[in-house]
Amino acid sequence: MESLSASSALYIPAPQSPCVSMRALVKPDPGPGMVLQEVPVPTPGPNDVLIRVLVAGVCGTDLHIWEWDAWAAGRLKPPLVIGHEFSGRIEKLGPEAEAEGLLEVGDLVTAEGHIVCGHCLPCRTGNAHLCSRTRIIGVDRDGAFADYISMPASNVIRLDGIPPEIGAIMDPIGNAVHTVLAGAEVPGSTVFILGCGPIGCFAVGVARAAGASLVIASDLNARRLELARAMGAHVTLNPRDDDVVDRIRELTGGDGVDQVCEMSGHPEGHAQAFAAARPGGQVNLLGTPSRNTEVNFARDVIFKGLTLYGVTGRKMYSTWHAMQRLLKTGQLDPRPVITHRFPLEAIGDAIAIIKDGQAGKVILEVGK
Amino acid sequence: MESLSASSALYIPAPQSPCVSMRALVKPDPGPGMVLQEVPVPTPGPNDVLIRVLVAGVCGTDLHIWEWDAWAAGRLKPPLVIGHEFSGRIEKLGPEAEAEGLLEVGDLVTAEGHIVCGHCLPCRTGNAHLCSRTRIIGVDRDGAFADYISMPASNVIRLDGIPPEIGAIMDPIGNAVHTVLAGAEVPGSTVFILGCGPIGCFAVGVARAAGASLVIASDLNARRLELARAMGAHVTLNPRDDDVVDRIRELTGGDGVDQVCEMSGHPEGHAQAFAAARPGGQVNLLGTPSRNTEVNFARDVIFKGLTLYGVTGRKMYSTWHAMQRLLKTGQLDPRPVITHRFPLEAIGDAIAIIKDGQAGKVILEVGK
Amino acid sequence: MESLSASSALYIPAPQSPCVSMRALVKPDPGPGMVLQEVPVPTPGPNDVLIRVLVAGVCGTDLHIWEWDAWAAGRLKPPLVIGHEFSGRIEKLGPEAEAEGLLEVGDLVTAEGHIVCGHCLPCRTGNAHLCSRTRIIGVDRDGAFADYISMPASNVIRLDGIPPEIGAIMDPIGNAVHTVLAGAEVPGSTVFILGCGPIGCFAVGVARAAGASLVIASDLNARRLELARAMGAHVTLNPRDDDVVDRIRELTGGDGVDQVCEMSGHPEGHAQAFAAARPGGQVNLLGTPSRNTEVNFARDVIFKGLTLYGVTGRKMYSTWHAMQRLLKTGQLDPRPVITHRFPLEAIGDAIAIIKDGQAGKVILEVGK
Amino acid sequence: MESLSASSALYIPAPQSPCVSMRALVKPDPGPGMVLQEVPVPTPGPNDVLIRVLVAGVCGTDLHIWEWDAWAAGRLKPPLVIGHEFSGRIEKLGPEAEAEGLLEVGDLVTAEGHIVCGHCLPCRTGNAHLCSRTRIIGVDRDGAFADYISMPASNVIRLDGIPPEIGAIMDPIGNAVHTVLAGAEVPGSTVFILGCGPIGCFAVGVARAAGASLVIASDLNARRLELARAMGAHVTLNPRDDDVVDRIRELTGGDGVDQVCEMSGHPEGHAQAFAAARPGGQVNLLGTPSRNTEVNFARDVIFKGLTLYGVTGRKMYSTWHAMQRLLKTGQLDPRPVITHRFPLEAIGDAIAIIKDGQAGKVILEVGK
Repeated sequence: MESLSASSALYIPAPQSPCVSMRALVKPDPGPGMVLQEVPVPTPGPNDVLIRVLVAGVCGTDLHIWEWDAWAAGRLKPPLVIGHEFSGRIEKLGPEAEAEGLLEVGDLVTAEGHIVCGHCLPCRTGNAHLCSRTRIIGVDRDGAFADYISMPASNVIRLDGIPPEIGAIMDPIGNAVHTVLAGAEVPGSTVFILGCGPIGCFAVGVARAAGASLVIASDLNARRLELARAMGAHVTLNPRDDDVVDRIRELTGGDGVDQVCEMSGHPEGHAQAFAAARPGGQVNLLGTPSRNTEVNFARDVIFKGLTLYGVTGRKMYSTWHAMQRLLKTGQLDPRPVITHRFPLEAIGDAIAIIKDGQAGKVILEVGK
Repeated sequence: MESLSASSALYIPAPQSPCVSMRALVKPDPGPGMVLQEVPVPTPGPNDVLIRVLVAGVCGTDLHIWEWDAWAAGRLKPPLVIGHEFSGRIEKLGPEAEAEGLLEVGDLVTAEGHIVCGHCLPCRTGNAHLCSRTRIIGVDRDGAFADYISMPASNVIRLDGIPPEIGAIMDPIGNAVHTVLAGAEVPGSTVFILGCGPIGCFAVGVARAAGASLVIASDLNARRLELARAMGAHVTLNPRDDDVVDRIRELTGGDGVDQVCEMSGHPEGHAQAFAAARPGGQVNLLGTPSRNTEVNFARDVIFKGLTLYGVTGRKMYSTWHAMQRLLKTGQLDPRPVITHRFPLEAIGDAIAIIKDGQAGKVILEVGK
Repeated sequence: MESLSASSALYIPAPQSPCVSMRALVKPDPGPGMVLQEVPVPTPGPNDVLIRVLVAGVCGTDLHIWEWDAWAAGRLKPPLVIGHEFSGRIEKLGPEAEAEGLLEVGDLVTAEGHIVCGHCLPCRTGNAHLCSRTRIIGVDRDGAFADYISMPASNVIRLDGIPPEIGAIMDPIGNAVHTVLAGAEVPGSTVFILGCGPIGCFAVGVARAAGASLVIASDLNARRLELARAMGAHVTLNPRDDDVVDRIRELTGGDGVDQVCEMSGHPEGHAQAFAAARPGGQVNLLGTPSRNTEVNFARDVIFKGLTLYGVTGRKMYSTWHAMQRLLKTGQLDPRPVITHRFPLEAIGDAIAIIKDGQAGKVILEVGK
Repeated sequence: MESLSASSALYIPAPQSPCVSMRALVKPDPGPGMVLQEVPVPTPGPNDVLIRVLVAGVCGTDLHIWEWDAWAAGRLKPPLVIGHEFSGRIEKLGPEAEAEGLLEVGDLVTAEGHIVCGHCLPCRTGNAHLCSRTRIIGVDRDGAFADYISMPASNVIRLDGIPPEIGAIMDPIGNAVHTVLAGAEVPGSTVFILGCGPIGCFAVGVARAAGASLVIASDLNARRLELARAMGAHVTLNPRDDDVVDRIRELTGGDGVDQVCEMSGHPEGHAQAFAAARPGGQVNLLGTPSRNTEVNFARDVIFKGLTLYGVTGRKMYSTWHAMQRLLKTGQLDPRPVITHRFPLEAIGDAIAIIKDGQAGKVILEVGK
């Protein structure tokens, strides 16, 4: 890990003129680590905008990419600029994007990082987040850990007063909004957030902002439970100390909660999620387990009349719309979750701290 | 008015023993006013419970009944005990109600005052509030302005810690919950409450508790706007001073609000409601106008893609369930709207103060 | 099996007068089989109606009860009259039921066999089918394989022209209606019915009646696939001969179907169900597996954005309402699925034919 | 009328070469009529496709444009090619459209004629049909009554086997699909189609295809009622002969229908629509009245708990998706409604026959 971190700090000045080259965290070849390189500033196509990156968020996915696990090795085609969470300032518009007249040079923006085809059945029926032709920035095409990024204008979202630091993490906040608001009537409801990584902590805040009457959060990590409390959890439970399901039944008059947000991805989490939901309740699953789960469908799903929903990405763009409202008014303030800030060149430290498990959200301060 | 008030204060002690007779505000004959009389304590049927009334709410409907307007004259069949909003303590259960084992003597309760058939299409498909066989307490059968009332066990709701004073007004709070939560996704949304009588003021509180990002309230009456602010309205508008629609557009970036709750019942309110809603928005209509409204359907409904929904009563019992949650946690505290408290015999004063327009919610303290 | 069948055919005339005793298929003690006995005609309570049984349906559950498997041994408390699917004629009403004036002696009726508390959270919010106090006729209290049954009036459904033979099987048809119509917009959609027992076959008919554009059905049993075709399946697949998932993808332009109805209860069925659904699709699970299923939640549920819904019973009473409409007009005609008719005393033959797997729906002709 | 028709037949050959000019029905100046002219073939932009028009549909809107009524005079900016319903064959793709790889030269297609901004709140939240920047072909920009039209690739829909004659009228069929399927659960439901112009007749077919159990249609015009019957109406009513509301109540056991589709735009239609809907029912309004409607909101909307929904255009693109499914399978066959076919130059005759009121759908055979 140290050596990788060291390698990432190695800055290789490029021979190009400053106006055509930029700094970028690049995966140059298959294998662990990232390298800070000078690369050409991207050229926006007719429907694109060029964005000067101000702040970027580091995600668990970036850790997988850094470590070059099986998923990363199977999906990424280096060389590639990494990073998919960011905010920035519009620097230039392609001619078609300009002709639309909806975005302007100087606008502070963020962007949906899933670039979809726009024509398939999911794209045409409100499920663009499930488009099979999706290309994700920082995964399938060049990303945002760089001074500049080019994005399709249709993916760009104006911040309209939301601070760039928050704008940079609207991708994972959007995961939380999608998870909490999907399918359930949240006002007055009881919600159990299972897993308090950054998205779980954001989900706590979303559930509170949306009027949940009781928000219970659980994690094995005491530091994360602190963050969940800072985001408004009424009760936090640690499976090391608490019988989670028993406590939830106790807190809900024996019924179980209306909604469970499964953010942990642990197969044990699933069993707990099903047991914690009330008959007729909803379990929204965001955490992606790395192995199979044994499910007792008769007892846990069918006789309970549960609804399960698999959460991917953000609804385009109803999730964004709801999120913008909650953030602009300050009903949802995700900043207590941001625990660490690094410059671009300290990516190795950022990755190390995420790996350590004591961080909330980690962001990179890229530009001004 | 004075004479009626005087007549209502006239207390006629009954010859019966105290255990079989009780005080009740009765409409003895067609015509204005009510009389405080001794009447027999009702005998609960096999499926009923007898409730000792503690607190009762006085509603605009009771004003119509007092004044014996055309609606009242066409609907009520005196003699009749008036009153449909109340809370109390269970005194006795009919044998079938007792066998169910769900309610007990001593339980603090309120009740849904619409007694429905349970068998018709609306009753069987989640729309019992639209049952054409509905019999309303205090309108179609004896009501709650009395020491005791007998109610079907299935209509009875346990307070479970909600104070009896609040329990007494869960009927109109339920109207507000039904109006605000019907059809719209409230978290993060913008809501315009048009008309700030007690139900409008409750609706302000419900919208806030449900996570609305902007709640705008309007009324011609400055006192009512004060109450709306006390319940959490972000902005209050008075049509005497403000161009309501212009201000709403301004406050919503030109779009209009996501949801309008029409609580005024003025035909002018309707036009304003349609104009204030954003394209694709929702207008929920609770206020019942006494004359026809001219509607430009092409401009105001069709080209705007609006959804209009007529609100009657409370959904049985999803509205009650949502309301209980919001009240138990204190997310919704309706007490700022309660401006006046009277004993049963002062019904004339209560009616006078409602008529005057300067009251919020008026309640009767009946028993202990 | 033969001996059990023989025992059931043994008729023991009772000493009582015919007006107070009746024939009934009784589980007299823990253990396999049923006995045809004379037992007292039930006495309806104040809210009940006494029904003369005309036709009854034999269900897979009755096979479990006959065989006295672990589930039956754990749940039933003999002596008990078996049977939960029936139609009949109203013979008598309790006084409260009569006072309601909604049902009359002579009405041809069927009934929802789940008797619920009516007061709990699920009962009050449209999920009465999930009431934890549910008592099922023929399982938790005396059932319908008898000349008479007493039912709460609120569970009774008038046939209004639906033939008694169809009325007798509205319980399982209702399972199919609940499964097919839950959550999905069926008109124009593509539906895969996995498992063609009687409820699966009914589901085929419901999907066709509701305007599905493509109904695919699968089963290992060729006779059942014949019945599915008779009910309108566009395509039938047999996993012995067909790669079911490949064929479904082929038939849906590579997407998978909008909705899967899992009626088989086989854990292998679950994997197939998830694979056959399109991204963003719906999987409704009715078949209850006897062992756990291994689920790859990341691949099969989360990244596909699937919704899973556990189906129990029938929605009270929106499922019944939809079903009545489809049956009255003849849009849905379940009669091709009825393959065998027996008199009450031939229950052993009925059970044997169900066990054999070559039957569709089996009914008992009880009275006239 | 004759003179206008004559003027439209006047063909002025253009001096340009055939490859760069084409025939088009043009409104050359403010005022009545249209002229068949040679105009330049449009040049597709980077995101556009050039389509050879095969068949076009003539709409009531085209009649307003021909006659140059107040609406047309206020909205259109001549010179302009008219026509917004069409099908055709892709002739050429702009470079961005080509790069997407989703459409190819030779594809048979139709298109959504509302070109929206894609960025506003309605566009981003499933209500693009309400985009305030909508530009309609044949109204706000050049249309389809021509040999060629250029369309944004994102608006183009492949026919995938739907005959071009049907493809040409998917715009109004889509209005019907949007109206019938919006908000109501159609399978098994009762539907009243008020007004049997072409879209009303299509709505009859959609309701049948979607499994409605009873479809009642009304019109003053006997010829149109014939077409409604040809599309599957179970019952047709003529207000000249029938008390429409009484008959509907009679046909629905006194309840009224589940859903009314108001396609007439007559203020009298509205009153009838509200009266014909059952308590808790849905009224979807598509017909655009030219004057205000007097509404008794208390009696007709609030106490009935009605939902009203204003229908504009087609949902992009969930309406299209549902429509494609219904058309591809032949569940919905709109061809009985097509009563007249004309060549492009006979537009005057087409307009005359529409004005006469005896036509169903009128189409123009433009190319091959």
